[in-house]
Amino acid sequence: MELSSIIEHLAQRYVDLNEGVKPDYIPELNGVDGRKFGIGLREISGSYLGFGDHGEKFSIQSIVKVLSLTLAYKRLGEDLWKRVGIEPSGSAFNSLVLLEQEQGVPRNPFINAGALVVADVLVGLYEDPEQAFLDFIRGLCGDQGIYFDENIAASEKAHGHLNAALTHFMKSFGNIRNEQNKVLDFYFKICSIKMTCRELATTFLMFANNGVQPLTGEEVMSSSMTKRVNAIMLLCGFYNEAGEFAFRVGLPAKSGVGGGIIAIHPERYSIAVWSPLLNDKGNSLRGFRFLEDFTTATSSIF
Amino acid sequence: MELSSIIEHLAQRYVDLNEGVKPDYIPELNGVDGRKFGIGLREISGSYLGFGDHGEKFSIQSIVKVLSLTLAYKRLGEDLWKRVGIEPSGSAFNSLVLLEQEQGVPRNPFINAGALVVADVLVGLYEDPEQAFLDFIRGLCGDQGIYFDENIAASEKAHGHLNAALTHFMKSFGNIRNEQNKVLDFYFKICSIKMTCRELATTFLMFANNGVQPLTGEEVMSSSMTKRVNAIMLLCGFYNEAGEFAFRVGLPAKSGVGGGIIAIHPERYSIAVWSPLLNDKGNSLRGFRFLEDFTTATSSIF
Amino acid sequence: MELSSIIEHLAQRYVDLNEGVKPDYIPELNGVDGRKFGIGLREISGSYLGFGDHGEKFSIQSIVKVLSLTLAYKRLGEDLWKRVGIEPSGSAFNSLVLLEQEQGVPRNPFINAGALVVADVLVGLYEDPEQAFLDFIRGLCGDQGIYFDENIAASEKAHGHLNAALTHFMKSFGNIRNEQNKVLDFYFKICSIKMTCRELATTFLMFANNGVQPLTGEEVMSSSMTKRVNAIMLLCGFYNEAGEFAFRVGLPAKSGVGGGIIAIHPERYSIAVWSPLLNDKGNSLRGFRFLEDFTTATSSIF
Amino acid sequence: MELSSIIEHLAQRYVDLNEGVKPDYIPELNGVDGRKFGIGLREISGSYLGFGDHGEKFSIQSIVKVLSLTLAYKRLGEDLWKRVGIEPSGSAFNSLVLLEQEQGVPRNPFINAGALVVADVLVGLYEDPEQAFLDFIRGLCGDQGIYFDENIAASEKAHGHLNAALTHFMKSFGNIRNEQNKVLDFYFKICSIKMTCRELATTFLMFANNGVQPLTGEEVMSSSMTKRVNAIMLLCGFYNEAGEFAFRVGLPAKSGVGGGIIAIHPERYSIAVWSPLLNDKGNSLRGFRFLEDFTTATSSIF
Repeated sequence: MELSSIIEHLAQRYVDLNEGVKPDYIPELNGVDGRKFGIGLREISGSYLGFGDHGEKFSIQSIVKVLSLTLAYKRLGEDLWKRVGIEPSGSAFNSLVLLEQEQGVPRNPFINAGALVVADVLVGLYEDPEQAFLDFIRGLCGDQGIYFDENIAASEKAHGHLNAALTHFMKSFGNIRNEQNKVLDFYFKICSIKMTCRELATTFLMFANNGVQPLTGEEVMSSSMTKRVNAIMLLCGFYNEAGEFAFRVGLPAKSGVGGGIIAIHPERYSIAVWSPLLNDKGNSLRGFRFLEDFTTATSSIF
Repeated sequence: MELSSIIEHLAQRYVDLNEGVKPDYIPELNGVDGRKFGIGLREISGSYLGFGDHGEKFSIQSIVKVLSLTLAYKRLGEDLWKRVGIEPSGSAFNSLVLLEQEQGVPRNPFINAGALVVADVLVGLYEDPEQAFLDFIRGLCGDQGIYFDENIAASEKAHGHLNAALTHFMKSFGNIRNEQNKVLDFYFKICSIKMTCRELATTFLMFANNGVQPLTGEEVMSSSMTKRVNAIMLLCGFYNEAGEFAFRVGLPAKSGVGGGIIAIHPERYSIAVWSPLLNDKGNSLRGFRFLEDFTTATSSIF
Repeated sequence: MELSSIIEHLAQRYVDLNEGVKPDYIPELNGVDGRKFGIGLREISGSYLGFGDHGEKFSIQSIVKVLSLTLAYKRLGEDLWKRVGIEPSGSAFNSLVLLEQEQGVPRNPFINAGALVVADVLVGLYEDPEQAFLDFIRGLCGDQGIYFDENIAASEKAHGHLNAALTHFMKSFGNIRNEQNKVLDFYFKICSIKMTCRELATTFLMFANNGVQPLTGEEVMSSSMTKRVNAIMLLCGFYNEAGEFAFRVGLPAKSGVGGGIIAIHPERYSIAVWSPLLNDKGNSLRGFRFLEDFTTATSSIF
Repeated sequence: MELSSIIEHLAQRYVDLNEGVKPDYIPELNGVDGRKFGIGLREISGSYLGFGDHGEKFSIQSIVKVLSLTLAYKRLGEDLWKRVGIEPSGSAFNSLVLLEQEQGVPRNPFINAGALVVADVLVGLYEDPEQAFLDFIRGLCGDQGIYFDENIAASEKAHGHLNAALTHFMKSFGNIRNEQNKVLDFYFKICSIKMTCRELATTFLMFANNGVQPLTGEEVMSSSMTKRVNAIMLLCGFYNEAGEFAFRVGLPAKSGVGGGIIAIHPERYSIAVWSPLLNDKGNSLRGFRFLEDFTTATSSIF
């Protein structure tokens, strides 16, 4: 069966599924229609398959952490790992506990503390980090129409006391080096980016293609570094549901609280799913189930 | 280049490496010659490549946890996950802490607490669990010459107060159901098994072949269950060095304190490495480095 | 107003109070009539005041930890503190966590882990520790009619997996030195002792009198050691309700899950209260409230 | 022997003691002469005894937490305990861990998190909290010459990322209600107050006299509330050395990182000791030892 038929067929199972909740702390995310459901798959050949609301922009939220990590890793190389680890954190609950035990060095770049360190790295590297980051993503995506959503960024900052706490806490250990408000502003800005499933699948295609964006031929990262980012996604991309996701889906992936999930099948494709209602671990409920069925039908990497 | 040449070539780099330490708490492991170095790789076609001390028996220790998990999962199916989780534990340190938070349900089947629950399952399923387990392994390996090392089992039991503590602790939550000494005896017995690299690679070949042992054609587990065990190996096989291992090697694997490592390249091969000197996380130092070079040279799954 | 009138007057407030729960894991404690209510106060002059069920025996449970600590401290002196600390544990929840952090040295002698270390000390000091302990208490109380309740001890042992876990865990750190079953048996035995309010107040009178049992004139401990045991009672006697108790009652005290509380007003009196229904922290609900009123009416040490 | 002779006699033992370290993170505290040693004792009769540098001002630091607690408790009454607990925290290490477990309600008012909540209460109660607080202390002390040290406050704020982290963290739980910088500024200001041993002993005399400042006859708090503050001092005044201090000294007390200790003997006296070199728990080394000898010689409350 063709991939397009499989997607169509499996997606139908979930079109009417209405379970899950939207995040209540950000009005802009809470206001999104819970019935939205989009899927975009791009093969490394370049061919693209879309389903449902795949052309509608949504807030990618934590999915952006893979891209900020990629830019920082590309620039700093292995020195980056002096400031952030690559081990699963075990549990959401532990983030602060572990940070205390480990003297301000976060477990991995996808828990909030780790993403804040990565943001601090980028703030230190660029004179205009926001512009540099937009340029980087626009290049990957081949689209100049990627912007920050200032409303979402402002709204998250207003509720961002936990991230402010993490930043100050790491600054007390010397692992945040720039002025904390600059780091937090940058962090909230990049989390506010909105993309479509199509844009997301295109942007992440390099992770399925050994670091080369196949549409442009640009080598963004070496094959070895790309594998490493994929490994971090597989182990840490779903917080304390990482094991469950690897167990059921078996692909490197990253989720965001906006209901998006990006997953990578190395040497084959990248796939983006969007459905705003979340399960009790904060990951897209319908997205997770669809991807489980999809990789069962098409075979995952394990 | 042929796999055999690659193995030969890369192994030479490490033949004289003499770093690392042997475990000091078990005389039988401490007495092993630290210079031993063996490699055995078996492809799913059945062809086998050996290097160095690949024909010498060593204590497989925690590597056995994959096999006891496999037998219990095969028998109980998904019900097994009511009694043990599939999430990385985050850190060695946390095992007891997490066990308390999570009311006696261990994080995953490879930390000691989880392996004790799996042992309890097997003790409950079989009248003679030791014989049943030997039969299972002998069947996988195609070799009747697999035995428990009673000296090692006795020595570990004598120093096994931490495992006894875990067992009693889980019994207080009702998650150990058989008499604690029976469970502990069985656990120490199975950890005492000795195998060669060749036997180990053969035994684990089914994990590279969707659950079918290619040498006999027997379907030990379904393809889907096999992928899941591989996912657990990838996320949890190296305790709090799981991220580092996935990052550098990129294969599902499991290590033992006897200096063995088994790794799986799905749809290609299983590889066993043995070198008794351990790094500071308790994993074979030379084994880890060799596997990193080997998968870099031959490409890993990510 | 006379102390006897105050006791009578305040006790009347609570005679009909029927709140709280009995422990459900020990049949012998669960079977006790929840309406029981006894008070016994002995002044250092020797004069005694009793109220209600003050002549009825009940299971003193953890109250005994003060007496086992006293005997061990008397024998070992300040060396005892190499094996057990004197800091409040912060919370019930943390006991196992802290024990892991602190390498098997319990926070204080009143959490279970600490009391097990004290039991281990006594098991190591005496050929027949049970007899030696009975002799010690009988001497303090001036009464040969103090016995272990073998049924309660057996019942607690059968449910004692958490204590067995703690014992094995500390043995793994070398802080339990005798055979674990001997230590556990001794521990469950001494916790099973039954006494009346009258006997309890008499036994503890030495803590109000600088270490001298006023009825016999025997100096059990030095004044300085006695003050120290009183300090530990004040800081650690009520687990994670120690602050609340010090705040409301202001006296060194120890509670037991059998519903007993002993409190000490240095240089004035000892008071025992018994009422089997417990609050949500496991301390006698009526006992706590009565003592709060009583020390408010008569002034506590702060 | 007269108290004055005892003080003189015991102080001589320690005059030449030069052990301990000064805090290195605040230049103003680090620059103080480590040989300074002052003692001031005021009896409830009003008579005063001074020794050594008792007339020299030093930074009282965390000792002020008792005074801010007193003002907040006086104003809010028992409602205060909805926002901060009264249990010992167990350990310095745990402060952040416990705060996470307990949803932003600090263990007690003397750990930093608790003192920040108390500061938040005062910031919410007064239009000019700094002036109100100075007025309160000046009234207790009978001296208009009490000021904030703006240099120390600024220096601490510059290094205050941990306190900023705690404030943001509690704000994320809704337990800091005013703008965080206002709370932090007020907190650093009150910690910067400088007093002499004489002023300190005078200010705290009310805690030895049931809430009445004997020099003026003013009832600052009720007897019952005063006892409660004393109980909190006894259980929580020395962080994770609280047990040790109660054990050795046996008085309600509070220490500051500036090397000051205030201790209360209810119904007899208040005593302030100042010696800038600290032990490994951050409490004045010489102050602690002197107080141990002093209460041994004069008898403490237990």
